[in-house]
Amino acid sequence: MTITAAVVGASGYTGVELFRLLAGHPEVKLIGAYDIHNVGKLVGEVHPNLREIVNLKIVKPDYVKIGKQTDVVFVATPHRVAMKFVPKLLKEKAKIIDLSADYRFDDVKVYERFYTKHESPMVKGVYGTPELHRAKIKRARLVATPGCYPTAAILSLAPLVKQRLIDLDHIVIDAKTGTSGAGATPSEVTHHPLVCANIRAYAATTHRHAPEIDQELSKLAGGKVEAHFTPHLISIVRGILSTSHVFLQKSTSKKSLLELYRKFYAREPFVRVLEELPQVNFVVGSNYCDIGFELDAAGNRLVVVSAIDNLVKGASGQAIQNMNLMFGFDETKGLEVPALRP
Amino acid sequence: MTITAAVVGASGYTGVELFRLLAGHPEVKLIGAYDIHNVGKLVGEVHPNLREIVNLKIVKPDYVKIGKQTDVVFVATPHRVAMKFVPKLLKEKAKIIDLSADYRFDDVKVYERFYTKHESPMVKGVYGTPELHRAKIKRARLVATPGCYPTAAILSLAPLVKQRLIDLDHIVIDAKTGTSGAGATPSEVTHHPLVCANIRAYAATTHRHAPEIDQELSKLAGGKVEAHFTPHLISIVRGILSTSHVFLQKSTSKKSLLELYRKFYAREPFVRVLEELPQVNFVVGSNYCDIGFELDAAGNRLVVVSAIDNLVKGASGQAIQNMNLMFGFDETKGLEVPALRP
Amino acid sequence: MTITAAVVGASGYTGVELFRLLAGHPEVKLIGAYDIHNVGKLVGEVHPNLREIVNLKIVKPDYVKIGKQTDVVFVATPHRVAMKFVPKLLKEKAKIIDLSADYRFDDVKVYERFYTKHESPMVKGVYGTPELHRAKIKRARLVATPGCYPTAAILSLAPLVKQRLIDLDHIVIDAKTGTSGAGATPSEVTHHPLVCANIRAYAATTHRHAPEIDQELSKLAGGKVEAHFTPHLISIVRGILSTSHVFLQKSTSKKSLLELYRKFYAREPFVRVLEELPQVNFVVGSNYCDIGFELDAAGNRLVVVSAIDNLVKGASGQAIQNMNLMFGFDETKGLEVPALRP
Amino acid sequence: MTITAAVVGASGYTGVELFRLLAGHPEVKLIGAYDIHNVGKLVGEVHPNLREIVNLKIVKPDYVKIGKQTDVVFVATPHRVAMKFVPKLLKEKAKIIDLSADYRFDDVKVYERFYTKHESPMVKGVYGTPELHRAKIKRARLVATPGCYPTAAILSLAPLVKQRLIDLDHIVIDAKTGTSGAGATPSEVTHHPLVCANIRAYAATTHRHAPEIDQELSKLAGGKVEAHFTPHLISIVRGILSTSHVFLQKSTSKKSLLELYRKFYAREPFVRVLEELPQVNFVVGSNYCDIGFELDAAGNRLVVVSAIDNLVKGASGQAIQNMNLMFGFDETKGLEVPALRP
Repeated sequence: MTITAAVVGASGYTGVELFRLLAGHPEVKLIGAYDIHNVGKLVGEVHPNLREIVNLKIVKPDYVKIGKQTDVVFVATPHRVAMKFVPKLLKEKAKIIDLSADYRFDDVKVYERFYTKHESPMVKGVYGTPELHRAKIKRARLVATPGCYPTAAILSLAPLVKQRLIDLDHIVIDAKTGTSGAGATPSEVTHHPLVCANIRAYAATTHRHAPEIDQELSKLAGGKVEAHFTPHLISIVRGILSTSHVFLQKSTSKKSLLELYRKFYAREPFVRVLEELPQVNFVVGSNYCDIGFELDAAGNRLVVVSAIDNLVKGASGQAIQNMNLMFGFDETKGLEVPALRP
Repeated sequence: MTITAAVVGASGYTGVELFRLLAGHPEVKLIGAYDIHNVGKLVGEVHPNLREIVNLKIVKPDYVKIGKQTDVVFVATPHRVAMKFVPKLLKEKAKIIDLSADYRFDDVKVYERFYTKHESPMVKGVYGTPELHRAKIKRARLVATPGCYPTAAILSLAPLVKQRLIDLDHIVIDAKTGTSGAGATPSEVTHHPLVCANIRAYAATTHRHAPEIDQELSKLAGGKVEAHFTPHLISIVRGILSTSHVFLQKSTSKKSLLELYRKFYAREPFVRVLEELPQVNFVVGSNYCDIGFELDAAGNRLVVVSAIDNLVKGASGQAIQNMNLMFGFDETKGLEVPALRP
Repeated sequence: MTITAAVVGASGYTGVELFRLLAGHPEVKLIGAYDIHNVGKLVGEVHPNLREIVNLKIVKPDYVKIGKQTDVVFVATPHRVAMKFVPKLLKEKAKIIDLSADYRFDDVKVYERFYTKHESPMVKGVYGTPELHRAKIKRARLVATPGCYPTAAILSLAPLVKQRLIDLDHIVIDAKTGTSGAGATPSEVTHHPLVCANIRAYAATTHRHAPEIDQELSKLAGGKVEAHFTPHLISIVRGILSTSHVFLQKSTSKKSLLELYRKFYAREPFVRVLEELPQVNFVVGSNYCDIGFELDAAGNRLVVVSAIDNLVKGASGQAIQNMNLMFGFDETKGLEVPALRP
Repeated sequence: MTITAAVVGASGYTGVELFRLLAGHPEVKLIGAYDIHNVGKLVGEVHPNLREIVNLKIVKPDYVKIGKQTDVVFVATPHRVAMKFVPKLLKEKAKIIDLSADYRFDDVKVYERFYTKHESPMVKGVYGTPELHRAKIKRARLVATPGCYPTAAILSLAPLVKQRLIDLDHIVIDAKTGTSGAGATPSEVTHHPLVCANIRAYAATTHRHAPEIDQELSKLAGGKVEAHFTPHLISIVRGILSTSHVFLQKSTSKKSLLELYRKFYAREPFVRVLEELPQVNFVVGSNYCDIGFELDAAGNRLVVVSAIDNLVKGASGQAIQNMNLMFGFDETKGLEVPALRP
């Protein structure tokens, strides 16, 4: 079976990454590249890495037509935009995978606190972490691909939180991202002369990915969890390293923790549990989430580190993983490529 | 048809890149990872990007056995080493693709001037630029994969030199490489504190890739060409940008030069002729060589720029392209993945 | 008054940084550059930034002679080396400023747990944080310049710990350093191809700077404090960003915390308390420690961020600040140069 | 003697660099920071590296007042702006050092071809290369600080061109710059995700610094010289490496070339002639121009490499060097600080 796919938001970084990965997907025929910017240009003109590979012209979206023609629509528009047209797509036949935040929250009030008034609050997406919600994703019409930071943080903490092995009041998540997470629009925050030899923390207690993390950790714990999340911007393009500092309820051993993680992720094709601490160049370019940890001598303090490519497992790769589930393909299809290292 | 493949020199950067690319090749079964370093370790322990992907153990090489068992052996050992054992492999059935310089030179004296006394001077390889020597490569037992700088430089100049459109006495090639070209062994040259915010020229008139460039340009011109080659080391990991400064014999137009290049490379799957100047992030992670140029207002001075990933088109990817030719596979098999950008 | 100064350990990165800063110090005459490496070379040959600026030849050290001739000796040798010869210097007239860890610990057992058996355990240094120990430093014969991470961490937490405003059991310090902190000797950890597009955590619960931090925070608190310290290596050359995640004993306001910090550091020439979060490019090249913080909406969780140049305030600059105190110079002499930004 | 100084264009990168260097100049009192952007803010708010160091408020410029009050005005506005107000300043007492291109050209038609219609074509500046035009600079009311690329290129070639030792028709200058040269305004060209792991050539035959280079080389040669200049953008913040590929009229030796350069620059405080090839981290943060070269075995082809900090010797530092000359100060005043390395 081959399905037809389209990308709305063809100019941005999750858009180009979807094209890059879908171009090699054996079950997918790319039929549409939509955007309000760069209309009339070839995808390969806007994204020169795709020249002679993705030969679609960028077209202004007509949502009714897209929804009728296309089996799966990837929504790669900015936050606050998807909610304006996803209901139109849902009226037609297309399944939808949204990469923005618009349908990630069970409680629309949380969304509205961190983003804006929701324009289609009754539409609900399935939170697209395959490792936690695989069954629901398979049946979904609309999947909301998780944020990049939440993906790294949630996967690294899920086994501990699920088993309530840690002090849930003192979960500190100190994350570091490359600049591609800031998107394709230039600004002072991504101005090379100010980023290249620099590192900064930002939104240290107020980042909008925090409520996503809390939502999913709370589900896992079966009760309200509020983690303490602080992101940093570093001078790399791709990759997130998420360092979680947690305190065990009782002293334990590295061996038993490794067993816990390995059991939890035993059948997961894209989670690798390591005996060493992961680094971003173990995963950049791939859909893997690598997880490792270090336990202090007393067996009480635990540092869990996870690494992902923010544009792959943290966005477009995970979106395709969800697509594979929604259409019954092998979950790893189109995502087998290993990371680039060096 | 599936063939068996092995890599001798499993610990280095061309080795890991061969594994990375071959892991996804549908016609290849990887059966051997050989090295004198890291013996007993899994490939994925030495190269964490390949963990759970390439599950071979690194073994000390027994060349007779390797030559008997394996359809194609990739030689990814340092210069001066391949020549010691390639003759042994050739006595058995294996076809050989050498990534070192040992069999690149038609005239062994040139090799000996830039490297060392050759230990198997009678053994000859085919210079593995598919765009120039495809027919010979198809029939070869031993292919010598070109150097990274020569690949970028030769492809960018071939149409001009072949047609003798430029002043052959004043070809200046100013090339810039990422640090992965220096290999996996740490040294002061690749010490991050001295490289990260730096750029340097090195071997400005004496680099050992110069005679390779001259050999191939001379063949194209049908007469002796000596280009002026100067390499630089810049603070990126992957990628070569090769900037050639040449002088046209007579004034011409951009249009006619574009036609020349497009005709020359019309059937080449991995050469893209651009209307703009290429950048390394158009190609990094892929097997493409992108070429573009700018002509001065008078139509006399021409700057030709080419970009490759030094580890892919500049080494392991081109080696696999050669393998595809030697075994009659589609030339692009296993090499379809687009570049990462951003 | 002009004093004579010498550097033992002229080849390393704290050595070159001492020369760079001392070359412009109006009260100092550099008279000796000592090392067991690079003997006979000029300082400017080993460190090309100092060519024609520091015209000393590197000489093998004769400690008796050095101790007699020199007013102040900077010890920029690796850990475990200073303790072998500092007692010899102390027998003569020289004052000594050690940049290694050898004399930083009040309790020699702590040193021995993290480093090695101490060879001169009876010799005691003053811990060289001017902001905390100025009076003692002024009178000292031997000052132990603090580690780079401890400098950033201690200064950022001192006001809170001194006032016991935070939960002392849940201090998480997540720090990020550039690669110059790893020193001048190449290794895989600083191999550019593996560092450049990467970030890693290391020694996540066991770093040897942790006991320094604990020693000083405990003195401030008037009781045992064990912070939870995790360092990371990022792809910049200079700079440390230290992010402390702490929990206030009772809800407070940003205003009152700003007052606390500003009062605490009111007379400090090299600590700047900011209203925004500091970034490393606010300070790189300078002796400043910038501190800022963000308080969560509830007023309970506090993220304190500090930034220093690891080679200046984190090593050689702070050493010179100590020298200024020990000899009665204006504390900022030779250290007035602002940071480079961009 | 202390003079008063002001900067018009306080928000940009040459502006902040002027403040950084002037803050430590013993003969200068900074009295004005002017701009149409950031009016009312402190310099240290806009440029956090200068917080608590430069305590001027940014004010909208009143040129008559500035010209009356100030001994020296640094013009750090964009090209095409200076020419609008410099004539007003010249009516008052101030001496003027312009860092833009507006007064660099002897022939205003050249300016107009590369920039725009000149609004004060009768006003002439002295081209501010102290090594070539020291006597004129000392007497000047208006000095035009050279471009960054021209500074590196001209100094590296001056001795050869002056003596006409090289083929003047085949001078190829292949230069590489950090991104700070692009200024403080974000754009796609300096967007970190597209620059960080990248290198590109741009304006390969048409850069507006080419006519500056040609103007000065022609003066040196005593006849028209047209060099072939191609710039590149690399992933560093500061620094230019300029690689000139030239052909000697007759075979010579490295020794005699070294003598030529050393004699030419014998009394220059900021040009260092090296026996090795310079690297940008030999000079970044300093006002030095380092020059070195490699001669091929035949003694015919010569590669001359020079390195500068584009914001110091390539802009603000050279401007201050010119100021020192114009006011009779020691030429090195305020510029003694060595480069940062590592």
